[in-house]
Amino acid sequence: MSSMKAVIIGPGNVASQTQMIAPEAVKGHAVVQLTASALNHRDVWITKGQYPGIKEGAVMGSDGCGLYRGKEVILNPGLAWGLSEACQGDQFRVLGVPDNGTFADFISIPEEYLLPKPVHLSCLEAAALPLAGVTAYRSLISRAKAKAGERVLVTGIGGGVALMAMQFAVALHCEVYVTSSDQEKIKKAVSMGAMEGALYTDEGWHNDFLNKSGGFDVIIDGSCGSSFPLLLKMLRAGGRLAFYGATAGSIPPINPQLVFWKQLSILGSTMGSPSDFQEMVDFVTLHSIVPVIDQVFSLQDAGAAFRRMAEGRQFGKIVFDHSI
Amino acid sequence: MSSMKAVIIGPGNVASQTQMIAPEAVKGHAVVQLTASALNHRDVWITKGQYPGIKEGAVMGSDGCGLYRGKEVILNPGLAWGLSEACQGDQFRVLGVPDNGTFADFISIPEEYLLPKPVHLSCLEAAALPLAGVTAYRSLISRAKAKAGERVLVTGIGGGVALMAMQFAVALHCEVYVTSSDQEKIKKAVSMGAMEGALYTDEGWHNDFLNKSGGFDVIIDGSCGSSFPLLLKMLRAGGRLAFYGATAGSIPPINPQLVFWKQLSILGSTMGSPSDFQEMVDFVTLHSIVPVIDQVFSLQDAGAAFRRMAEGRQFGKIVFDHSI
Repeated sequence: MSSMKAVIIGPGNVASQTQMIAPEAVKGHAVVQLTASALNHRDVWITKGQYPGIKEGAVMGSDGCGLYRGKEVILNPGLAWGLSEACQGDQFRVLGVPDNGTFADFISIPEEYLLPKPVHLSCLEAAALPLAGVTAYRSLISRAKAKAGERVLVTGIGGGVALMAMQFAVALHCEVYVTSSDQEKIKKAVSMGAMEGALYTDEGWHNDFLNKSGGFDVIIDGSCGSSFPLLLKMLRAGGRLAFYGATAGSIPPINPQLVFWKQLSILGSTMGSPSDFQEMVDFVTLHSIVPVIDQVFSLQDAGAAFRRMAEGRQFGKIVFDHSI
Repeated sequence: MSSMKAVIIGPGNVASQTQMIAPEAVKGHAVVQLTASALNHRDVWITKGQYPGIKEGAVMGSDGCGLYRGKEVILNPGLAWGLSEACQGDQFRVLGVPDNGTFADFISIPEEYLLPKPVHLSCLEAAALPLAGVTAYRSLISRAKAKAGERVLVTGIGGGVALMAMQFAVALHCEVYVTSSDQEKIKKAVSMGAMEGALYTDEGWHNDFLNKSGGFDVIIDGSCGSSFPLLLKMLRAGGRLAFYGATAGSIPPINPQLVFWKQLSILGSTMGSPSDFQEMVDFVTLHSIVPVIDQVFSLQDAGAAFRRMAEGRQFGKIVFDHSI
């Protein structure tokens, strides 16, 4: 039995760097040597106790890239999705707590969750892809069915899912707009192919933005909260609003006439099926999309990485390089 | 110039039985001799001034069946839908105010809005079909994409759209449940193929109903209001709630976690495109569906017909027989 370094969820929901016994090969499972992993909001919520099914001592981390039988692989973090494309089943779990995750030197995982690493990506870039990529892909493409030429708004640009959704929409030849509370993030988004951005902290931003853009066919949102009715107003007739999170809280009362008269669709979306994941990886490969990396940490510096995520100032994914 | 009887929207938004000049043939337009027509909630709202674009003196009525060049025809009441299947365009109007409608002996209408009357229907039954039929078809099939074997809830059974949605869902081999405030309406619905019904006036009805049914894949609603969050809770994972009206008012705050974690879809729907209309008529013909008629009036008795609709006690469509 060999030892490995890992970041586990420790007593009091503290993310703790530790040494633990490395997993051994079990029939049907692959033991992958992880070379890189990436942080998600989910990891921060786990340390705040805001997640069901927290299991003390489990290795954290949903995103990973590594070596298996001499080949570079990425991991599909959506475990036991189930048989329906429409929704995950009762057994569904995101990799990393309660199942041992990717913030470790090794992971044991059923072989079906391994896919070849896209060749155009480095290990660090590939580790940044899985969870944000599949969430963005399902929201934008499987659920909202964005098409070339459509006008797409992605809110809260800078977060992993939002950035990926923007990159996917640009690759689809959509006309993409973004919102943020930070002018620097908007500038970066425009340099990556967005048409324009709005500061959602400005009074009346949605009217200005509606006038400029003419309204949106698709909106991808991760915050809900008080701006949700404004997003509905910004949809064009036949528009689709897909949301994958609710960092700003509950959805306020909605005017039903607006929704039925404009034939709007409000679509909840989370994670993605194995088909979504495979299609996402194919799409990323076809369009040579490179996930944006905000900053690279070592697993020893996990605390600093978690703090950066909690501050919300990142633009792109926070990645762990397991070789440093 | 010949004279005809008609029901127009008169001064003070009163529906008024009158004599007026019959329309004459214009190029591209058909002059149809109307043999039957049917009342919709829309007509009642017009008399309450609760509708945009009311034009005093216009003939009321959206639903009609009649004779054109010796053939029996029905009228598609969705005028100038536009080019997109996703939503009606800016020019869209429902037949009957401001355009002259079907509560008259004759109507002049572009030929494109005429379809052969389904042979299995009488004129009175065919007149009951168009507006409710296309609204139900688009909600249930084009928008919510109900499929054989799925569990469908139709709320407020008794109204024209709700009944038609129930009949369509039964024909699709869905397992259909209904709600009403009237036990007699539930009994009738069950006699027409519904599995079971709930009185939405009973305390805790949604929990009983959820336990009995196991939850719904599709819900078709026309009321919104305070029961909307209960409907969302009654959806199974991957479920779709389509609504075509909001007789009970605004949509209260929604729990976004419920919507994204269960991958729910909230779909606004109104009327239908020319394709929806043609598909609906084909579907009704294929399955020999007969619209339910509540009561038949003469145009002279329009006042009594409007009162019956306003009271909300009808089960099925209120129809005008133009030959009596």
